Amino acid sequence: MTEQRVDIKKTLKNYSTTVEKELEKCFADRGIEPRLKDAMEYSLLAGGKRMRPALCLSIAAHYGLDFDVTVPFAAAIELIHTYSLIHDDLPAMDNDDLRRGKPSNHKKFDEATAILAGDGLLTEAFSMMLNVQGVPAERVLQAASVLAYGAGPNGMVGGQVVDMELTGKLDVALGELQHMHALKTGALIVASCLSGAILAGAKDEELAKVIDYGKHLGIAFQIADDMLDVIGDEKELGKPVGSDEAQGKNTYPSLIGIDESRNLAIQMASSACLAIKDFAGAQGEFLRGLAAYVVQRAC
Amino acid sequence: MTEQRVDIKKTLKNYSTTVEKELEKCFADRGIEPRLKDAMEYSLLAGGKRMRPALCLSIAAHYGLDFDVTVPFAAAIELIHTYSLIHDDLPAMDNDDLRRGKPSNHKKFDEATAILAGDGLLTEAFSMMLNVQGVPAERVLQAASVLAYGAGPNGMVGGQVVDMELTGKLDVALGELQHMHALKTGALIVASCLSGAILAGAKDEELAKVIDYGKHLGIAFQIADDMLDVIGDEKELGKPVGSDEAQGKNTYPSLIGIDESRNLAIQMASSACLAIKDFAGAQGEFLRGLAAYVVQRAC
Repeated sequence: MTEQRVDIKKTLKNYSTTVEKELEKCFADRGIEPRLKDAMEYSLLAGGKRMRPALCLSIAAHYGLDFDVTVPFAAAIELIHTYSLIHDDLPAMDNDDLRRGKPSNHKKFDEATAILAGDGLLTEAFSMMLNVQGVPAERVLQAASVLAYGAGPNGMVGGQVVDMELTGKLDVALGELQHMHALKTGALIVASCLSGAILAGAKDEELAKVIDYGKHLGIAFQIADDMLDVIGDEKELGKPVGSDEAQGKNTYPSLIGIDESRNLAIQMASSACLAIKDFAGAQGEFLRGLAAYVVQRAC
Repeated sequence: MTEQRVDIKKTLKNYSTTVEKELEKCFADRGIEPRLKDAMEYSLLAGGKRMRPALCLSIAAHYGLDFDVTVPFAAAIELIHTYSLIHDDLPAMDNDDLRRGKPSNHKKFDEATAILAGDGLLTEAFSMMLNVQGVPAERVLQAASVLAYGAGPNGMVGGQVVDMELTGKLDVALGELQHMHALKTGALIVASCLSGAILAGAKDEELAKVIDYGKHLGIAFQIADDMLDVIGDEKELGKPVGSDEAQGKNTYPSLIGIDESRNLAIQMASSACLAIKDFAGAQGEFLRGLAAYVVQRAC
């Protein structure tokens, strides 16, 4: 976990810049109703590390696919992530007034517009994925299907429902929390990794490594996110410190304490690195470095 | 418009029964969180004529594709339609307590669950479409892409935003109303028709006919729906007569009167029939008969 020939933050920033350019143009000159376009772009272009697209891009590149081919697909993943944040912030859900330090979508616009902006982003994500050029149609189908599964009732949407059920509940077991996060945040991270490998035509035995990496990275990421809410990094989170606790959310620190959370996060990041230990070259270094970076943020 | 060798209601019922069977099994044995599964199935299996899937099935069959191949794709369209109804009924949108004579999804469950049930249905629809077997991958990609476009910001979701903006507005022009409905209801109907033709490998010159049919059918359908709200058919609509007017919605009858609405509906149904006048055989009869039936409901 200590190799640092590749500058992780700089590489992540490069990926993010590439993805931003794609995001900026995806609703341009389309004749979309201005209020809807504004609302979708407000949240889509509000910053963020673009980690999920970066995972897709890096893994596709590791297996030999050109960046230019992968970018629209990778950017589409950010549309899915953004829709989930907009709906998650709604009054009926987490009722968050702030997102990345700015008014959440329904606060900036209104609730109906926020619901529809989320719906529009999710639907448009599939348009973007299905129109990827330069890859055999079978691979595009399979990669988009992986995203639909990871974002759907057996993945992210299912995790949201479990999250609602666990919120405010006492005596939540660690296993329940892990199951919820495996769906709510893990499934989309795994799908981001897996779709990159599929688009690039990676062999079946390679896919298992990528899934293994994504699963452990997802857990490490979530623990670090929970820890940041406690130890405080409003710049990173864009919402007040302690807001998870205030909402009655169960978190890793609330269940197992901050020290044990840190240990578990490091262990998960190590397992993620181990899963792709044979990834030679710059992408392997970036992906292992990213796992370490995700945890270091909170340590 | 008077040919009746094919019994339209019976044929529509047969298509609907086939689609229902597919809908009943799509969330079975999947390990989906029970509350989410219940909420999705509550609205998905609440009845309805399944007109959009029937259009896809019939048009695909006209161009020679087996029903068995088309059914999962056609059923997926009903998931998209159902998600749109759930989100449309939400308090922040139309705030409807009833849908098809039963409590709307957020009344039966709660608002957060209804939002997520809609999100889950939309995402799962793409899973279903992308996993259609027995058709070349290129066609599946193109057909699913047509659905994503028709359901997205340039189609249905865009139409919802325009609808919100027109609601309560005075002096709405007929052109504005038609534009709104072309997006809100028309785009998904056109996409249902077009995707069936694409799945079956219809040639480009055929696609123009199918689009033309779908556009005119969509307008005829919407006018009839608006008329039913005025002249009264609660059984058909499942909501109180006059509820559009009570919500400040602009409708065809409110803009051009009931007689002119009827004339326009008949004219649109005739144009739909004309677009596919060369469709020989049972599917052509069904599709032309359906256009007539849609209008007859309200005459």
